[in-house]
Amino acid sequence: MTVLNQNDNAMFKDYNYNIFGAVDALKKEFGQQFSISNSVREQHTSTTTVHQPELPDGVVFASSKEDVQKTVKICNDFGCPIIPFGAGSSLEGHLNANFGGISIDMNNLNKIIEVHPEDSTVIVQPGVTREQLNTYLRDTGLFFPIDPGANASIGGMTATRASGTNAVRYGTMKDNVISLEVVMPNGEIIKTASRAKKSSAGYDLTRLIVGSEGTLGVITEITLKLYGIPEEIGAGRCTFPSVKDATDAVIMTIQAGIPVARIELLDVAQVKAVNNYSKLNLPESPLLLLEFHGSKSSVKEQSELFNEISKDFDADNFEWTSNIEERNKLWKARHDVYYAVKACRPEAEYIATDVCVPISRLSECIMDTIEDMEKNSLFGPIVGHVGDGNFHVQLLIDPKSQKEVEVANGFLERLAHRAIRMDGTCTGEHGVGQGKKQYLIDELGPTVNFMKLIKNELDPKGIMNPGKIL
Amino acid sequence: MTVLNQNDNAMFKDYNYNIFGAVDALKKEFGQQFSISNSVREQHTSTTTVHQPELPDGVVFASSKEDVQKTVKICNDFGCPIIPFGAGSSLEGHLNANFGGISIDMNNLNKIIEVHPEDSTVIVQPGVTREQLNTYLRDTGLFFPIDPGANASIGGMTATRASGTNAVRYGTMKDNVISLEVVMPNGEIIKTASRAKKSSAGYDLTRLIVGSEGTLGVITEITLKLYGIPEEIGAGRCTFPSVKDATDAVIMTIQAGIPVARIELLDVAQVKAVNNYSKLNLPESPLLLLEFHGSKSSVKEQSELFNEISKDFDADNFEWTSNIEERNKLWKARHDVYYAVKACRPEAEYIATDVCVPISRLSECIMDTIEDMEKNSLFGPIVGHVGDGNFHVQLLIDPKSQKEVEVANGFLERLAHRAIRMDGTCTGEHGVGQGKKQYLIDELGPTVNFMKLIKNELDPKGIMNPGKIL
Repeated sequence: MTVLNQNDNAMFKDYNYNIFGAVDALKKEFGQQFSISNSVREQHTSTTTVHQPELPDGVVFASSKEDVQKTVKICNDFGCPIIPFGAGSSLEGHLNANFGGISIDMNNLNKIIEVHPEDSTVIVQPGVTREQLNTYLRDTGLFFPIDPGANASIGGMTATRASGTNAVRYGTMKDNVISLEVVMPNGEIIKTASRAKKSSAGYDLTRLIVGSEGTLGVITEITLKLYGIPEEIGAGRCTFPSVKDATDAVIMTIQAGIPVARIELLDVAQVKAVNNYSKLNLPESPLLLLEFHGSKSSVKEQSELFNEISKDFDADNFEWTSNIEERNKLWKARHDVYYAVKACRPEAEYIATDVCVPISRLSECIMDTIEDMEKNSLFGPIVGHVGDGNFHVQLLIDPKSQKEVEVANGFLERLAHRAIRMDGTCTGEHGVGQGKKQYLIDELGPTVNFMKLIKNELDPKGIMNPGKIL
Repeated sequence: MTVLNQNDNAMFKDYNYNIFGAVDALKKEFGQQFSISNSVREQHTSTTTVHQPELPDGVVFASSKEDVQKTVKICNDFGCPIIPFGAGSSLEGHLNANFGGISIDMNNLNKIIEVHPEDSTVIVQPGVTREQLNTYLRDTGLFFPIDPGANASIGGMTATRASGTNAVRYGTMKDNVISLEVVMPNGEIIKTASRAKKSSAGYDLTRLIVGSEGTLGVITEITLKLYGIPEEIGAGRCTFPSVKDATDAVIMTIQAGIPVARIELLDVAQVKAVNNYSKLNLPESPLLLLEFHGSKSSVKEQSELFNEISKDFDADNFEWTSNIEERNKLWKARHDVYYAVKACRPEAEYIATDVCVPISRLSECIMDTIEDMEKNSLFGPIVGHVGDGNFHVQLLIDPKSQKEVEVANGFLERLAHRAIRMDGTCTGEHGVGQGKKQYLIDELGPTVNFMKLIKNELDPKGIMNPGKIL
């Protein structure tokens, strides 16, 4: 399916990539750790997206930073694209080898190197997944909060500046990476920062690499912030007459300084979908799901304050609990979102969008988007990380219908431009990848040229995940 | 005084600056808005630091972004250094014209452009000071928390990645700048990001500019995060038998998830100094001062929890209050720190250091530093933003004593290297400026070369605040 591919790759066309030379050298260097088999190559491409898979020419299974360094050096010598590969869950075609080249599989770099409980920090290799990390940390009383849904690798989450449901309280990867070790395109290994909690020591290369989608170097170590597991977790749920009432309640909640940990919006189409799929009886109205973290009394106070606020916006059926089983029941509507949507049209292609706008514009942006879908006979339930102004239209389309694909493409473009017009962004958490290169230019204009200058200077041969972002 | 100047400016020596040409052109362009008078030039250099003032050749008083753009374009045409100037409170010689050139005074760019209460954001010009901003915001119920002590300009705070006493709760400028408008070295004006709360749209140029100390461009607009003014503010104070007991109590407090807003440590020398200066009777023991923000009940709970924790570390005399006058009394020891230290040796030069280490190493770093001072007959009371692992030795030395200057230089170098050995940084919040260029290399090694690549690519003529950071 070719929805969305915005492959204006002009800046990469002048490179004289020598992939064959690199493949030969990697074979000699890595033996069994290097594969050119079809099935392996097919697993190392973008398979979870609407982007057509584009296979690499070979896959290195790295098991150490030295392996990464050797691979980068060989690829740099020959001029061969190199694409870091973690859990494979990215959504914007980041893992496609659209210029051919080498996929470097980071899954064997899966050690948790050092936990520093007193500092609330941990150093991990990039192949560690977030579930693996939190399982490992359980006995320390600490946890790593960022939760993009999928059991992504920490390396991939860093590379895409991931976030998810609890960013409203804990921030995104940008806020939770303290330092990185990176193999730069010339093969040099650098550390971007010390392990101090804050620093004014020179340019913030940590945050230049966070969100660079593998285009500036390969991450080999990540130092993360951790948080104490809350004494108490409370869950809440209520319905609102309109999306505007729901978002206004969220705005008041944030202004009142209630440190809500998650606050998710489901639109009417989404509520209907989960009612069907999960056999629930939720009123067919916009729904907010909340989570509160803190001490027992603070969680109670937070939910009471929220309840008061929500009444001002005509909320109905507010329920809350701190019992774990009841919490899961209350949140079932959210947990089943993906499957509930898929079940609406099992044969359809699922497209996840992720625009993000200032929260004052959120209800307008959502309502205009729903109207746009209705006008164009498109179907896409909406779920939103509403505390951040970020929402996902989960568009279901028939990839075999040329007409539907065209209509969808028009809708996606209008959605991105709508968010940009409202001073928002075309991507709140998935990244630019192959799909949003034109939107990035629409959003930031000449700023993108300065990104290109940096890319060209740090990666003069264009070997690091070419054709993504820029 | 020449303590500290680390002017290895090799990378800037090859530039053929043409300052005279630029001065002539600026005179024609700006008339009365441009000055070459001695007294004006003397005010536009680093005067609050140990670095010898180095005067610019002229000063442009910009009153709009167009003025800034014109100035940068002229300086770029002729190849003339340009140094942005805000409140003049920087501590590392950032405002010195060590290659000559033009100071651009940003104080007339002092408009608060747009407040968005629903989004908890504000857009300001760089000359707005933090006190001006908070006075303006008072009626909205919102405030901007970052407080470096001085009434600095928001532009300067952004450029140095400033923080201060409440970073432990609200983060640093890195965490609170959403987007920037910047005049780049070629005169182009860019916007680094949308106003959305989070984004994965390309390289994080916002955070590349935050902390770049005027070396990559001139900031002309800043979009900031705001916070609800807390319903209740509580203050607390207690003494500990040792620095280690105090820092261990802080570690436990953070791990327990108590969202303390400020947590400041005064060492014994500092306590003695404020006892003398402010006529207090504090026990001559390490002192912690705390501030709690939240609802009435949450502030009460936080201070009770902290009191429990502090008892485990043999704290004494815990007092707390939420009455504003009593709060000020309790915190008087902290408010008077600077004057109390100065009064210890009125004729001496005051040097403020700012290393930052992982909090697990903080007591060791402080105690080794005190021992070092004692061995070398140096005097420097210590105050620390202890929740961040950041502390200031306030060294008092006689600038006329060559011997004392040499001993102090040795001490400062050992202090920086001690922090670096403990996986910390030579600068937690003041920046690199002229004073810490060698320490930056000691801290990050080859990483600094990649900073230089970025600098050279974005500013090929080396006009933006040359001789700072790199």
